[in-house]
Amino acid sequence: MSVPKASDVLAAEVRERILSGEFPEGMPLPPERQLVEQTGLSRATVREALRILEVERLLRIRPGRGGGAFVHRPDHQSLASTVQLVIRGQQIRLDALHETREAMEPACAALAAGRRTAHDLAELDAAHTDLVEAGEDIPQFLRANVRWHTAVARASGNELLIGFMSALSQSIYAATDIQQFMDTEIRAITARAHASIAKAIRDGDPAAARRRMERHVCGFARAAARVDSRESLDLAGTESELAPPEAD
Amino acid sequence: MSVPKASDVLAAEVRERILSGEFPEGMPLPPERQLVEQTGLSRATVREALRILEVERLLRIRPGRGGGAFVHRPDHQSLASTVQLVIRGQQIRLDALHETREAMEPACAALAAGRRTAHDLAELDAAHTDLVEAGEDIPQFLRANVRWHTAVARASGNELLIGFMSALSQSIYAATDIQQFMDTEIRAITARAHASIAKAIRDGDPAAARRRMERHVCGFARAAARVDSRESLDLAGTESELAPPEAD
Repeated sequence: MSVPKASDVLAAEVRERILSGEFPEGMPLPPERQLVEQTGLSRATVREALRILEVERLLRIRPGRGGGAFVHRPDHQSLASTVQLVIRGQQIRLDALHETREAMEPACAALAAGRRTAHDLAELDAAHTDLVEAGEDIPQFLRANVRWHTAVARASGNELLIGFMSALSQSIYAATDIQQFMDTEIRAITARAHASIAKAIRDGDPAAARRRMERHVCGFARAAARVDSRESLDLAGTESELAPPEAD
Repeated sequence: MSVPKASDVLAAEVRERILSGEFPEGMPLPPERQLVEQTGLSRATVREALRILEVERLLRIRPGRGGGAFVHRPDHQSLASTVQLVIRGQQIRLDALHETREAMEPACAALAAGRRTAHDLAELDAAHTDLVEAGEDIPQFLRANVRWHTAVARASGNELLIGFMSALSQSIYAATDIQQFMDTEIRAITARAHASIAKAIRDGDPAAARRRMERHVCGFARAAARVDSRESLDLAGTESELAPPEAD
């Protein structure tokens, strides 16, 4: 027979109120002492319940004067953290990460073309400038690359896709020993592909944005898989796969 | 100044060993008493660290004789739970769920066509039989529908896509007041679309599987959005959108 723990029961009740919207973002919870009185539970139980919700990122604990427990509704950052936990914990192959990205990113680009704000376009431009100005600085190039892909996801305006994509980008970035095939030519091809996708997003052309992103991510994944499987890199083949911009 | 809590530090160390694979699935952790000795930390701190990892689903606690804390690596069920937490917590619109599904499910179908095992095909068949045999029993029809879509995701063989899709299916199922537009005709169209997608998966034809799934999920999302926005349902229009099977 399994009896539910008092701390789990209390945590479940508070969780439900947060998720249903009854407790709004930023709302302070009553102080521990008052929760003990209200619930008739022990101080240790109340503490444990609060700790559970803190670990689940549904509460933020601020210490000191004016501190306490504050409601925090799960956001795309909570999602991204768990996705990364699963990717590491399951030791999910790099292929599978690329596959998932290929499945989602063309749709992100298409949605972005329909919804991008002035702010999104400015962020895409800034990330692109970073990437172009990286020159021979490969780590800067790779960071700018993640920033650009994240900007596309944000422009889609879909919180779920944003969370999935940012977890994927960070994991792919961390998992790929990508430096060895990031030569001058491939960096130039990446920059041109980005410029061409960004143009479609700016022009509000979902079909072109989707198609160009599809070519870009598929080519990149194949090139990375080849490096990953320690085969020698056929540069001539890679060039055509890394999605040079379409003639417009 | 923020000083890390001892329980967080201990939890982080054990988490790292689980995620890196040093502690394999199912491994028992040393008993609490021994952890207290090894770490020099208080019993309360050790307990709190174990509780954190339990909440994160990285440990499973079994009570009684032969019980204790056992390593559990995060899987697609952990992922699905968090995704559902975020969907509820952010009160993500049904549109956004459909959008995300449209982005991923055609790719799932294409991968499934390349990788389906005999077991996957049997599960697709069983879900299809459930759906066809539901007759006028709408709840059974809807459950069979989720089962079928989950079977497609499983056949993709990609743990991440499986986790994302199962969370999405369950949330869409829970969020859609779908009964009102599930009339006899639409149920028949759904069954035919499923049969045609399953055929492409069985035949190992990724392009057809992707294309047919694309038509199926897009049509369904538009029909559901229309019901959701409380507009009257134009049945004639819905029929063509709900992706009748292609002539082969």
